[in-house]
Amino acid sequence: MENFRLYIPTDIRFGKERLRELPEALEPFGKRVLFVYGGGSIKKIGLYTKIMALLKKHNLIVAELSGVEPNPRIESVREGIAIARQQQVDVILAVGGGSVIDASKVIAAGVYYDGDAWDLITDKSLVGEALPLVTILTLAATGSEMNRNAVISNLATKEKRGTSGWELIPRVSFLDPTLTYTVSKWQTAAGSADMMSHLFEQYFNRTEGTDVQDSIAEGLLKTIIKHAPIAIREPDNYISRANLLWASTLALNGLVGQGRSGAWSCHAIEHELSAYYDITHGIGLAVITPRWMKYCIDRDASTHARFADYARNVWGLTDGTDKELAQKAVRQTYRFFKDQLGIPMTLPEVGIKTQDILAEMSQKAVEHGNLSENRFVNLGTEAVEQILRASFEPMDNNEQS
Amino acid sequence: MENFRLYIPTDIRFGKERLRELPEALEPFGKRVLFVYGGGSIKKIGLYTKIMALLKKHNLIVAELSGVEPNPRIESVREGIAIARQQQVDVILAVGGGSVIDASKVIAAGVYYDGDAWDLITDKSLVGEALPLVTILTLAATGSEMNRNAVISNLATKEKRGTSGWELIPRVSFLDPTLTYTVSKWQTAAGSADMMSHLFEQYFNRTEGTDVQDSIAEGLLKTIIKHAPIAIREPDNYISRANLLWASTLALNGLVGQGRSGAWSCHAIEHELSAYYDITHGIGLAVITPRWMKYCIDRDASTHARFADYARNVWGLTDGTDKELAQKAVRQTYRFFKDQLGIPMTLPEVGIKTQDILAEMSQKAVEHGNLSENRFVNLGTEAVEQILRASFEPMDNNEQS
Repeated sequence: MENFRLYIPTDIRFGKERLRELPEALEPFGKRVLFVYGGGSIKKIGLYTKIMALLKKHNLIVAELSGVEPNPRIESVREGIAIARQQQVDVILAVGGGSVIDASKVIAAGVYYDGDAWDLITDKSLVGEALPLVTILTLAATGSEMNRNAVISNLATKEKRGTSGWELIPRVSFLDPTLTYTVSKWQTAAGSADMMSHLFEQYFNRTEGTDVQDSIAEGLLKTIIKHAPIAIREPDNYISRANLLWASTLALNGLVGQGRSGAWSCHAIEHELSAYYDITHGIGLAVITPRWMKYCIDRDASTHARFADYARNVWGLTDGTDKELAQKAVRQTYRFFKDQLGIPMTLPEVGIKTQDILAEMSQKAVEHGNLSENRFVNLGTEAVEQILRASFEPMDNNEQS
Repeated sequence: MENFRLYIPTDIRFGKERLRELPEALEPFGKRVLFVYGGGSIKKIGLYTKIMALLKKHNLIVAELSGVEPNPRIESVREGIAIARQQQVDVILAVGGGSVIDASKVIAAGVYYDGDAWDLITDKSLVGEALPLVTILTLAATGSEMNRNAVISNLATKEKRGTSGWELIPRVSFLDPTLTYTVSKWQTAAGSADMMSHLFEQYFNRTEGTDVQDSIAEGLLKTIIKHAPIAIREPDNYISRANLLWASTLALNGLVGQGRSGAWSCHAIEHELSAYYDITHGIGLAVITPRWMKYCIDRDASTHARFADYARNVWGLTDGTDKELAQKAVRQTYRFFKDQLGIPMTLPEVGIKTQDILAEMSQKAVEHGNLSENRFVNLGTEAVEQILRASFEPMDNNEQS
């Protein structure tokens, strides 16, 4: 285990019927609120009206930024910064999924930054002071509600990239499982794949002696594997929605990732798919992950022991050599995404028909994600291209034996 | 899962050679420091000298309270409050194990309380504002370094009782595994039993649908079961000391306990043993816990499923009915404490020879711990007495079949 700092001062309010605590959560920071949300689903479920009534009752002054995109764009961030400055906002209230929260984080920092907001994405050392952020989560996926990360897309330059800063951690986050009842089967599947990917990206790692972190990752994976299919079948199953929601938050708040080095792989590849094709992030991750796993196992025998841990401790597999267990675990992962979550598991099925720009995307993934060093298995451009190319065909035929 | 608030703003600095960060951690709170420590082991390992040199180099003004007891006494707390007031202390630096940190917490709150400090223990609603607290941990056990709880003993009234308050959470905690290298086999065993007991007290619970919390508890238990015997054999095994230290902190910082109701049992019983006989807390817990488990299984078949989860997910047991698995898991727990941790597993072996005051202790345990309601299995005076009486004889004979 390596040295680490863990500092997560987000005040989590988990559970149902806690909205009455919202004014008390906002008021310490001031009276002027920027209310940020997405495409209007919070209006459909009546949440928008409830929040506005509550804020007005407490004489809070509300500015609004609506229409933040699923892969949030830098244009929305710029717009939010302009509003926040003009309205002299004291605090940001983000209501939505990770995209709304991520955009709000960069707005919060952008208010204090003189240059263009995209600079904060390409160079996180520029992220300094930020407005306080309060969130109300409506989608279990990114973990943004309890961490200091944000991912923003720039369609003009075909880039989707991450930034981070200690000042970006939300001060208070409301996690109400009932607000996720109306999340579609598709988005529930995508969110579940996203949180599983967060755990994989941290679990498949070379740092030794991280049993605490590993056992938490395994526990959260088992919890997601148990509850995601239930939430898809029974959207208003409170226990499953609650476990998914809390697992998604803990999957990426530092508990699993701290104490080890070695960085992520599949997210960097997926970011190129989303940057070029604007596909749903979690779906892209579900497609890429099993191909990445197979690539690691095929190319590097030193990965087998860790994949065998995954097989034993997450899937309960017991029979076989480490390599056999590793291969079985990849198959289980693929079948879980396909059969249990109902995710289309090839790129053509999600609208990516041509392989013409695979080389370009692969090169950018390696470059933006720095994939060729300090990874579980280092990836060059050819490796990424091979993983992407494999994502055009089903894995069932060559995997089932 | 039930509604919960999770707010743990402790800034954790985990790892070796981080002492140079101490002045930066203290200075935001002021220049006048109350340095609290125990019986002098920090002098033996050279830590005292290093800290004093560092504080003086940074022109911090240091008052001292030394000699805080293993079961910290209210007299030490009163003394600390007097010094803190007289020296107009800005911040408390606690260096030691849970006892030193617990005493420091009540000193921190006591400075702002006009009455006698024991009031803060018997009525936690009186705990309000508190001095900021920075800790340097030297023993993996209580989790006090990242939570808002404190347990104090009053030998005059033969009471050992807990209090808590949001203001008592340490602001910064330094967790350096190398500082635990000199912890004796006995204290390593006791600390490990203590952290396991914290997990048991939260895991054996009636709230349904807490898979996130349960899987984290199971993971931490497996980690402790793996690493405690190694740390006892090889006191300077960094990986094992690191995993034990981090597991002890996470075992009682809210992650496992939040989202469920139903309170603890074994700690309340042990507190009476420590109050009457001043025995090592973790050792008392190791002795009592398997007898409490056996009592639950023998008396209440509705506990079998949960004990069977424990058997399967922590000990990897697979064969048998839930009841059989439950019984096997109790045996494993007992044998682990005895054979792997080397704990004397009867009360006479730890110096409690007479059964004369069992009835009195049992009555107090039920009363102070409110053991007869809202427990995994409610316990009356007779039940506690039966558990204590069983702790006078080895379990091996009647358990091995």
